[in-house]
Amino acid sequence: MPKERTALVLGAGMVGSAMAMDLARQGFAVTVADASSEALERVRSRYGVAVAQGDLSHAAALGRLVAPFDVVVGALASHLGLATLRTVIEAGKPYCDISFMAEDALSLDELARQRGVTAIVDAGVAPGMSNLLAGHAVQRLDACERLVIYVGGLPAVRTWPYWYKAPFSPADVLEEYTRPARIVEHGKIVVRPALSELEQIEFPGVGTLEAFNTDGLRSLAYTLRVPFMVEKTMRWPGHVELMRALRETGLFSKDELVVKGQRIRPLDVTAALLFPRWTFDEREPDLTVLRVTAEGRRAGRDVRLEWNLLDRYDAATDLRSMSRTTAFPATILAARLATGALRRPGVNPPEKLADEPGLVDHVLSELEARGVAFQFRES
Amino acid sequence: MPKERTALVLGAGMVGSAMAMDLARQGFAVTVADASSEALERVRSRYGVAVAQGDLSHAAALGRLVAPFDVVVGALASHLGLATLRTVIEAGKPYCDISFMAEDALSLDELARQRGVTAIVDAGVAPGMSNLLAGHAVQRLDACERLVIYVGGLPAVRTWPYWYKAPFSPADVLEEYTRPARIVEHGKIVVRPALSELEQIEFPGVGTLEAFNTDGLRSLAYTLRVPFMVEKTMRWPGHVELMRALRETGLFSKDELVVKGQRIRPLDVTAALLFPRWTFDEREPDLTVLRVTAEGRRAGRDVRLEWNLLDRYDAATDLRSMSRTTAFPATILAARLATGALRRPGVNPPEKLADEPGLVDHVLSELEARGVAFQFRES
Repeated sequence: MPKERTALVLGAGMVGSAMAMDLARQGFAVTVADASSEALERVRSRYGVAVAQGDLSHAAALGRLVAPFDVVVGALASHLGLATLRTVIEAGKPYCDISFMAEDALSLDELARQRGVTAIVDAGVAPGMSNLLAGHAVQRLDACERLVIYVGGLPAVRTWPYWYKAPFSPADVLEEYTRPARIVEHGKIVVRPALSELEQIEFPGVGTLEAFNTDGLRSLAYTLRVPFMVEKTMRWPGHVELMRALRETGLFSKDELVVKGQRIRPLDVTAALLFPRWTFDEREPDLTVLRVTAEGRRAGRDVRLEWNLLDRYDAATDLRSMSRTTAFPATILAARLATGALRRPGVNPPEKLADEPGLVDHVLSELEARGVAFQFRES
Repeated sequence: MPKERTALVLGAGMVGSAMAMDLARQGFAVTVADASSEALERVRSRYGVAVAQGDLSHAAALGRLVAPFDVVVGALASHLGLATLRTVIEAGKPYCDISFMAEDALSLDELARQRGVTAIVDAGVAPGMSNLLAGHAVQRLDACERLVIYVGGLPAVRTWPYWYKAPFSPADVLEEYTRPARIVEHGKIVVRPALSELEQIEFPGVGTLEAFNTDGLRSLAYTLRVPFMVEKTMRWPGHVELMRALRETGLFSKDELVVKGQRIRPLDVTAALLFPRWTFDEREPDLTVLRVTAEGRRAGRDVRLEWNLLDRYDAATDLRSMSRTTAFPATILAARLATGALRRPGVNPPEKLADEPGLVDHVLSELEARGVAFQFRES
């Protein structure tokens, strides 16, 4: 790849840093933008990339910032996701984003088509690789009857009482524990309580985990015609029981409570207490587990496809597994966008790219080259 | 007993009501005093007793109130306990109290002796019967080596996630879960964390319970010379694990936390959420379990004494077991005070009365007549 290709990474957090490192290794001239000069200094000194400090929630300034780059990669907080997507599309730049926005990114699909811009959203691990493999599974079967995605980001060392630390925004974690989960049954979206349908999972190399419904299907519920689909989140055993008890107690409630004359949301108190306890220590190892299973028929026979990923903290780069597995799918896709090898005007969740010739194999092999190795088996 | 004997009950709550009922049944002319006219109306209409509404924290008024009565029985909140004790002593009235004050009641012992007043404190079930039986055990042995008191007040029906409701002040319950437990080992007071040294207990008629250290020895740590003494609280299994997790999270902390610009004590938020969930429903049955064990030597042989109490909600009187078992020891002792059959000027925790001829047998048989039956065994 010619040295002169340029990439802009939005966000200098854990994932943005991993993206900057990987894009630089791929030969891009990388600039990282963030509001925090402290975060920028860290990524600059670590990876020798250029940095740009500024308020990325300011649309006009962001539009000017992205203009010179061949490709833009997004790793901003979820609440900035949609506005950033719109600005990058309007600036006419190919874009690959992992911001996990709450809003429907496909609402900007028409705009992206009009501008001839290829944008990829939810391009991390799950959502991300889970979507790409789900779309791929549907391609590989004559009829896909059931898709199940299991995903978890965990501390390698388990500690009472949570058996958990949050490898990404703990506020988003608590949101997962309260927002009802939309799953697909008999081709229809049905709603289940958060933390429901707890089951035990045996994960090779990890042991027994617990998995429960989460509201993580996102675009898959609309883009794939599979009669049964569910996403479940995995945790070390014991975590869910405590989270359920905290929720039952009202500690996750956003309804104001009057306590000694002050109006307070219990969730704010709980978050203030929990989040410091859910923070990884320096160089503390985490692990990421992902399983995508697809059941269906091919050539008149029942077929089951299964991909398993077990990835761990990398001491050499001091990158947490969650950062690695989230950043690398996006940077691998971004490189294809930058060269024009991948071009699909519109807003694309990864499952829509699964029919792109050779793309899934390319992404899987590039991930494996970075130590993020999926195991596949068919039965 | 002549009809004209008069008793004043301080407090018209659950325990005060049970005291009023029992004293009326014993033939006393009973008056119940409380700040709440609503609570008084309930006890008046239910038991036909006289009532007196007033601020019982006002010493002069309280002194005037108690003046006409033969005996006073106290069932006020713990924070009123010491001041009330002082006022009743100064008024020269025999007094029997269950208020579970945090302060040292024995600090008023000298005053009570000077006034010739017999006051009995901690005269409920535990503290109360536990003290009386502990003192009795020491009397019955040549040398008592070890005293263990197990006590619990529980809902009869167990419900996730607490497996618990509070049959008395839930604030006092949370205090038990946070205040370090003072126990006696090798004749010295040592401090253990609250909720520590969890063990399983098999209780006949109840099943398996969990027991943990609580700071409940109170006067026993000073009045009895027994080298090993501990009080443990019993709960249905599962409760303690959740309480420990809440404590670890900081939810029992009294240290102010700044949350969205407001200073708040996490314990206040936790209490506001927990206490409604720990409230018994109307006519919901509870049960009280108490075990007192004493190990020592008598006539050169190892002896183990054990008393077990299992008491349940009484549907006929709609009195919870915790109210019954707390009120009746006090009313039985109060009747002895009123007649002068029991006279020990000073402030007496029950263990100091264990050498009173016939008293322990009298209390146990009177309790049994009220359905509160201790089982004794020696081995």
